[in-house]
Amino acid sequence: MRNINEDTITQAVIASFADCKNARLRTIMTSLAQHLHAFARDVHLTEDEWFKAIEFLTEVGHITDDKRQEFILLSDTLGLSMLVMSQNNRKPANCTEATVFGPFYVEGAPLYSNGDDIANGAKGAPCYVKGQVRGANGKGIPNAQIDVWQSDEEGFYDVQNFGDEGHSVHRARGRLKADAEGYFNFRSILAEAYPIPHDGPVGRMLQAVGRHPWRPAHLHFMIEAPGYERLITHVFREGDKYLDSDVVFGVRSTLIVEWKRHEPGTAPDGRNLDAPWYTLDYDFVLNPLEVHA
Amino acid sequence: MRNINEDTITQAVIASFADCKNARLRTIMTSLAQHLHAFARDVHLTEDEWFKAIEFLTEVGHITDDKRQEFILLSDTLGLSMLVMSQNNRKPANCTEATVFGPFYVEGAPLYSNGDDIANGAKGAPCYVKGQVRGANGKGIPNAQIDVWQSDEEGFYDVQNFGDEGHSVHRARGRLKADAEGYFNFRSILAEAYPIPHDGPVGRMLQAVGRHPWRPAHLHFMIEAPGYERLITHVFREGDKYLDSDVVFGVRSTLIVEWKRHEPGTAPDGRNLDAPWYTLDYDFVLNPLEVHA
Repeated sequence: MRNINEDTITQAVIASFADCKNARLRTIMTSLAQHLHAFARDVHLTEDEWFKAIEFLTEVGHITDDKRQEFILLSDTLGLSMLVMSQNNRKPANCTEATVFGPFYVEGAPLYSNGDDIANGAKGAPCYVKGQVRGANGKGIPNAQIDVWQSDEEGFYDVQNFGDEGHSVHRARGRLKADAEGYFNFRSILAEAYPIPHDGPVGRMLQAVGRHPWRPAHLHFMIEAPGYERLITHVFREGDKYLDSDVVFGVRSTLIVEWKRHEPGTAPDGRNLDAPWYTLDYDFVLNPLEVHA
Repeated sequence: MRNINEDTITQAVIASFADCKNARLRTIMTSLAQHLHAFARDVHLTEDEWFKAIEFLTEVGHITDDKRQEFILLSDTLGLSMLVMSQNNRKPANCTEATVFGPFYVEGAPLYSNGDDIANGAKGAPCYVKGQVRGANGKGIPNAQIDVWQSDEEGFYDVQNFGDEGHSVHRARGRLKADAEGYFNFRSILAEAYPIPHDGPVGRMLQAVGRHPWRPAHLHFMIEAPGYERLITHVFREGDKYLDSDVVFGVRSTLIVEWKRHEPGTAPDGRNLDAPWYTLDYDFVLNPLEVHA
């Protein structure tokens, strides 16, 4: 500790954690120091670059508030969120894959029944969604709880339009239950591709590295049922031009499906629609919870 | 990009930087993604831990303002600042070693002449500092510019006591010039050990890992002269109890010297002092700038 230089600093930092009573925290801090230092050495980070990084993180902190989480955007755009999600949600091959949670989930969305229109005024082409929630044995899971949320035709989630007072109207999001055989269906709108908020430091970072801020169109699902792992995933829309460059690295090919376009006419709920409408059929297979003896 | 999982995510992120026009930025971002991901894999970071990290960084951002830079404190306490400083300030063995800059430097400190009292009202035992600024050839460097700053007897820098309106009185800091032979001398006060600001998230991190927030007593110097590398360093006080556990890892044994205690009596400037006073003698050897042909 009295002869700190670029060769001894990492060991000195690791040694400083020796009295940490929390073994897990000690493991994490030790690894963090090693990798942080390895990064600085590998690129021979200069003092100016270090200071630019300090300024960047400061801006990320200052733009973050109750409605905007720029650190999560940073984690998402560097692939860290997808990595952490993936390594904590390993699924057997026959189960539906998980993907990133994203920043637009809201607790306590309105409760709906099968067949309801969850758009609640959100603008977009009508889209009828149905499917089944099953176990790996192929049997429907009765009464599985389904949370669903999505962007509107302009690429905005309702939370992005909430007023300054925080008054909110939930649009294009809701909670419903699968029926006794695991089947569910609802009407919503066609999700569209959208850019993540990119008027802040993360947006400038993306521009500096030559990346666009877009996510391909998708519908978020969170599905829970007793005895099964909670599944957090998206269903992506086949043909979207951003499927090969999702800014948050969330795409998995098994989650891409056709959202069928239909000409004006009679919709699945019997309504007569005078504009094109869509259908999306997708089944989910949940992974049983491990039971420890 | 359509089959992102924990094995493919790092390559996908690296590939996303392919269009970055700034080659240095591409190198840095590529290495950052690799090391960030390696860290998350090594410790098998959980989703809860990831979220705690997001919350921690958010707090670090929110407590940071014009007067307090918690990201620099974080970098300092993880040894990153010392590493970056060291690898960018390699000095030949016969030159004075550099150490961390710290957050308490202020541009435009008062100008003083040799022999002046730079304390300017800061409280502490009188300390008479003198030395010579030399080149590696042993010759004095005429008129070398010296910036000096330090804490008072309570361990505070003047900037920590600045009022809310930003009105400031510079105490225990100043700028002076060495004479024609490189000699300098001034009166100040005895620097004392102090804790870095630890009422925020970095302080909580230190407590969680079992570390104290203290720095051993030291006097900051920044010395510049034409034809030489700028030297940013400290002189530490021999016998300080925190020399073996400096919270920012800044200690180098060549920078530790005795600050001699003297009984009440006649000081070097002829004053009669009725309390103990100190002297500190330290010479600095600057590294010549490399001249590229």
